Amino acid sequence: MSLFSQPTTPGGPTLAEVGEFGLIDMITAGLPERSDVLIGPGDDGAVLTIDGPVVCSVDLLIEGVHFKTQWSPAESVGRKAIAVNVADIEAMGGTATGAVVGFAAPPDTPQAWVLDFARGLRAECDTTGVALLGGDITRSDEIAISVTVFGTLEGRAAVTRSGARPGDVVALCGRSGWAAAGWAVLGRGFRSPRAAVTAYQVPEVPYGQGKVAALAGATSMIDISDGLLADLGHIAERSGVSIDVHRDAFEVPDPLHAVAAATGSDPYILILTGGEDHGLAATFADGDVPQGWTVIGTVDEPADGPAVTVDGAAWDDSTGWDHYH
Amino acid sequence: MSLFSQPTTPGGPTLAEVGEFGLIDMITAGLPERSDVLIGPGDDGAVLTIDGPVVCSVDLLIEGVHFKTQWSPAESVGRKAIAVNVADIEAMGGTATGAVVGFAAPPDTPQAWVLDFARGLRAECDTTGVALLGGDITRSDEIAISVTVFGTLEGRAAVTRSGARPGDVVALCGRSGWAAAGWAVLGRGFRSPRAAVTAYQVPEVPYGQGKVAALAGATSMIDISDGLLADLGHIAERSGVSIDVHRDAFEVPDPLHAVAAATGSDPYILILTGGEDHGLAATFADGDVPQGWTVIGTVDEPADGPAVTVDGAAWDDSTGWDHYH
Repeated sequence: MSLFSQPTTPGGPTLAEVGEFGLIDMITAGLPERSDVLIGPGDDGAVLTIDGPVVCSVDLLIEGVHFKTQWSPAESVGRKAIAVNVADIEAMGGTATGAVVGFAAPPDTPQAWVLDFARGLRAECDTTGVALLGGDITRSDEIAISVTVFGTLEGRAAVTRSGARPGDVVALCGRSGWAAAGWAVLGRGFRSPRAAVTAYQVPEVPYGQGKVAALAGATSMIDISDGLLADLGHIAERSGVSIDVHRDAFEVPDPLHAVAAATGSDPYILILTGGEDHGLAATFADGDVPQGWTVIGTVDEPADGPAVTVDGAAWDDSTGWDHYH
Repeated sequence: MSLFSQPTTPGGPTLAEVGEFGLIDMITAGLPERSDVLIGPGDDGAVLTIDGPVVCSVDLLIEGVHFKTQWSPAESVGRKAIAVNVADIEAMGGTATGAVVGFAAPPDTPQAWVLDFARGLRAECDTTGVALLGGDITRSDEIAISVTVFGTLEGRAAVTRSGARPGDVVALCGRSGWAAAGWAVLGRGFRSPRAAVTAYQVPEVPYGQGKVAALAGATSMIDISDGLLADLGHIAERSGVSIDVHRDAFEVPDPLHAVAAATGSDPYILILTGGEDHGLAATFADGDVPQGWTVIGTVDEPADGPAVTVDGAAWDDSTGWDHYH
């Protein structure tokens, strides 16, 4: 039934003008063929061959919470939507192979925005080897994106948050603090340092390193989305250990120095509590840390005090991001 | 970081007061153990053993589009969110075994609403044999729910929309028109007939009948979400056939008679174009139609005219629901 009148839009057609089915056709046209995709978009469900148990994760991206259309080009929103979910599969030690996407947007959303968004989805799927399997499109008052990614463990055991042992070391692969730095400058109306802004728009996930860590014998692993200390707190809690992070282990990258100086803050706040970079933190027996990973701390027996400390002391700032606080 | 001040709410705590992690703990407490769930909620991803290729589907439910909080109790929204996705797996001839849920809501949403919603999710998961594997919770301005369901084909080939052949018959299992009838009366401020309102709140999906149809040799199948004629149109288009629906095949149930009389409309409009009941329509070679299914039409060679006709003639009303028109 006709839910909307057809608005007049000088800037190109809107979703209300194109319609749900026209849009789906545009987004899914010419998807690459893959031997593991038995049935792709266009039916009630998709069918994907996966080697062994399925590892899966879902994330929502809400306009105004996870991205702002004035801060992030549509293509970067699409790329981020895939990247953050693939990071979750990596954090289990898995390899992502498929994704389904739910997309809700206001009827007056320009078609061009959606097609740019879809281009980003497909680009990041190509980068990560993920098949875009299908999805759902509907209307809403704000843009809401749901991505579910599936993958395989290729016969390995999953690496959970609960296996860290006293005596292990904590190692990091990928960035920490960059997205928060980008968010901080965008929030002040600036567009530079460009590297920080770009990191906020599309996280640079260390693709493939989850598998590397699993093969190296990682005892626990997590994707850094809430903030490094907060996420290490999840490992400490689930593993029943305490974790001490060593500030000296971090080199402060130039863009973070610049942002901290410009905003009158401490770059270590960005590094230790900024989330959304989707690097990987893992624990290893000492000596097992693979190339490309940096040791940033140690795992100890559970303590009476805070589960995560910095250089042996409580960190008195917020440890991360809770979407309802 | 603190995104919200803590509102004072005389009616009980809100999401902003409980927080994301507290809420997740409440929703996932005491989930039943299952041998196929290797890793459940609480890690970066979940791990589920699935027999053979994975069949999957995602649907979004947006407040104000797919449900209204004043028309549907929270528990029914949770049940519907699972049911509509399981129906998609059924429509592929599969059996649903796992689900991940994305949930976004305003910070001032009462915790009680969310817990009732979660109770509905879990109840429908129990009914359908689906494991609740995990999810994502975040804030938004309107309630947005994303459910992704996975399942197995148990060694069978998937039943797609594209296999209908001239000479097949079209059969229906489950309801058609009930949810639309409920929507029509709620939209006029009424709460009865109760059976129609309930059907709108939680569709009565014919669980297990997708597998029955697949085993009986269904040549194509679809879940009725957009409206019967619209969804048969998808089969006709993908299969390259035409379909004729026979009005006499339908008995008009009492609640639909009552709603049509009260709203001055034709009950067949509800039956033929109302969506959201999530019954199953499938095509079979004549003689293969399983028990519990009703023959409602025939599959013919492609025609010059409309792909779907009713008693041989074009249906001149809207054929169904497009979320952007």
